[in-house]
Amino acid sequence: MSKIEIGPRVSPYPMQVVIVGTIVDDQPNFMTVAWMNRLNGNPPIWGLAIGKKAYTLKGIKVNRTFSINIPSIDLVAEADYVGIVSGRNVDKSKLFEVFYGKLESVPMIQECPLCVECKVYDIVELPRTDLVLGEIIAAYTEERYMSDGKLDPKKINPFMLTQPDNHYWGLGKIVADAFAIGKTITE
Amino acid sequence: MSKIEIGPRVSPYPMQVVIVGTIVDDQPNFMTVAWMNRLNGNPPIWGLAIGKKAYTLKGIKVNRTFSINIPSIDLVAEADYVGIVSGRNVDKSKLFEVFYGKLESVPMIQECPLCVECKVYDIVELPRTDLVLGEIIAAYTEERYMSDGKLDPKKINPFMLTQPDNHYWGLGKIVADAFAIGKTITE
Repeated sequence: MSKIEIGPRVSPYPMQVVIVGTIVDDQPNFMTVAWMNRLNGNPPIWGLAIGKKAYTLKGIKVNRTFSINIPSIDLVAEADYVGIVSGRNVDKSKLFEVFYGKLESVPMIQECPLCVECKVYDIVELPRTDLVLGEIIAAYTEERYMSDGKLDPKKINPFMLTQPDNHYWGLGKIVADAFAIGKTITE
Repeated sequence: MSKIEIGPRVSPYPMQVVIVGTIVDDQPNFMTVAWMNRLNGNPPIWGLAIGKKAYTLKGIKVNRTFSINIPSIDLVAEADYVGIVSGRNVDKSKLFEVFYGKLESVPMIQECPLCVECKVYDIVELPRTDLVLGEIIAAYTEERYMSDGKLDPKKINPFMLTQPDNHYWGLGKIVADAFAIGKTITE
């Protein structure tokens, strides 16, 4: 079938949903972000794009530290909520059980299977967002989210966002082994 | 349960898999990338982190254009393959049916449900990768991947990578409506 051109403002399919934790005006604040990924292996740097008016950005710029928390599906309503309402108008500090790690001013979410605390590596100004690059200083999980000493995606049970249909999705089934199935092409 | 600290070199769960298309040394070349996401809405800018030695990076820097192609699960072996072998050693130009859009030197993959062509917006140097920011100039799909005038994630049938377990995963089920389920928290 032949291709048709659609408007350029499309999204990837799908985008992982994370919750960013900061201290803003002396209070823990949380915001959902789907424009996020790993960007450098060593040192570990993750990047997230945040709208320039976000209250969270204020905390990141003052403290130069923040957390990224990966929620499981049982937190989907809370994650959606902290993406809808601004910390300017609503106190989101009591929504989760908060814990702290090595860095100052980095609230993390006890209920999330994987939490990382970051120092700002750099902030890249884009037209409508700031791309915050964070170097991961430490990562936290629980034994119950691991299998054979590794984090287990099925136990983490993350969810992803697709747009413009605006749905959250769970992980499906394993379809292949990475860095392995491709070898069948050369054989 | 209490948190345990693990090493900081962790990955998000999961990361979408895309295939980047470039012209390098006058030939179409393709490379798989999982460190990619949307980073700005308008203009539409996606960012992808590419290892500094990648052959693909040479093409992006010369042409200042490239494509991002979202493969469906039936291309999982091919996508894995173009992530394993370098265009320096293997001709990957015949692996897919290639088509072209509005820009010069932007090979796109006919077999992929969604293809976007990009101009380089900026390149941010990170320690071991270059973060290529691409402004999307045009996007291409087919009617069979859409429902009610929108791209349909289930019809696109994308797959995602998790590490360090090294698996590709399909999309699961819809677990909630985004920008909606959170409203139950305030009620």
